[in-house]
Amino acid sequence: MFEPPVQRLIDELARLPGVGRKSAQRIAFHLLNAEEADATRLADAITEMRSTIRLCRRCYNVTADEECSICMDLRRDTSIVCVVERAQDIPVLERTQSFKGRYHVLGGAVNPIAGIHEEQLRIKELAERVPNEGITEVIAATNPTLEGDTTAMVIARRLKPLGVKVTRLASGLPVGGDLDYADEVTLGRALVGRQDL
Amino acid sequence: MFEPPVQRLIDELARLPGVGRKSAQRIAFHLLNAEEADATRLADAITEMRSTIRLCRRCYNVTADEECSICMDLRRDTSIVCVVERAQDIPVLERTQSFKGRYHVLGGAVNPIAGIHEEQLRIKELAERVPNEGITEVIAATNPTLEGDTTAMVIARRLKPLGVKVTRLASGLPVGGDLDYADEVTLGRALVGRQDL
Repeated sequence: MFEPPVQRLIDELARLPGVGRKSAQRIAFHLLNAEEADATRLADAITEMRSTIRLCRRCYNVTADEECSICMDLRRDTSIVCVVERAQDIPVLERTQSFKGRYHVLGGAVNPIAGIHEEQLRIKELAERVPNEGITEVIAATNPTLEGDTTAMVIARRLKPLGVKVTRLASGLPVGGDLDYADEVTLGRALVGRQDL
Repeated sequence: MFEPPVQRLIDELARLPGVGRKSAQRIAFHLLNAEEADATRLADAITEMRSTIRLCRRCYNVTADEECSICMDLRRDTSIVCVVERAQDIPVLERTQSFKGRYHVLGGAVNPIAGIHEEQLRIKELAERVPNEGITEVIAATNPTLEGDTTAMVIARRLKPLGVKVTRLASGLPVGGDLDYADEVTLGRALVGRQDL
């Protein structure tokens, strides 16, 4: 329907997560009508990110260097590691300013239906880090989903024989939430995980 | 929070229409984890579109040539012109297969609040086309909004002295719609525009 170069861009944009055909079309025409510099900056940002960013050789966080800024930070506690599914979970945890250890990015969660098995996650690499770095505690900060819970169990099973403590982020009511609106699974977990006052 | 090249891409993506910070982050990490070729194809599609696409010198539709494929199509009726706000409206009208004339892209609609006045739209260019191309009817296919209606009125006022017929797309109930769900303005227009059976 559109001129081939326009249609090609719409097709590429529609492959992005959360972008349907209608928004792809809107974005393409926005880029067509935008200042030349604006469109170029986006294309360059994609190219630049792909050429400069790689994975930290220690924790598999994204970095422009050999190791990520967190792994290179000498003030961080190297004996405690927080295991996340994806690199984009790290800034979320960092914003809490409650964790001063290092991270380990698994690259996903166990999901047999989607064909993701534990061998495809970086669990072996994590197991190697435990003795090498003298890690004493591993926090499984995978998502509070069936897949994340399963992954946390797999990690516990694999790491406990190494003499490391394996913990899990608490599940429960969101702060500021309303009991009325909590789903029964969350409420059930909040009950099981109740703490002394 | 993120490595600078990642943050830069997130910032650029968040400037796109309909893309918030959260989806920008999701898209950036998708591009980071995607095959190198996939990310490159998107960057290239942007660059290619910007370098090859320009505006048709006659109707201001997007084209890779001097004139767009519709203006160059010898089977089209050159005496009737459909005026649209934006180039992306043309494929929508083409899909109806109900119009065999040419188009004219205004580049927006009159909107004093947003600072868009009739001098900024391509109305003068349209007025020049009328005698040059022997146009006998101009269909104002601007959006059925306050701005689109105003623009249609402006076009009528400017072109009628040239002896050309100016018409407007009918407003009324959407086909397959339910009377119950029609808003009163649409229903009012459907009543005013009622036709003999």
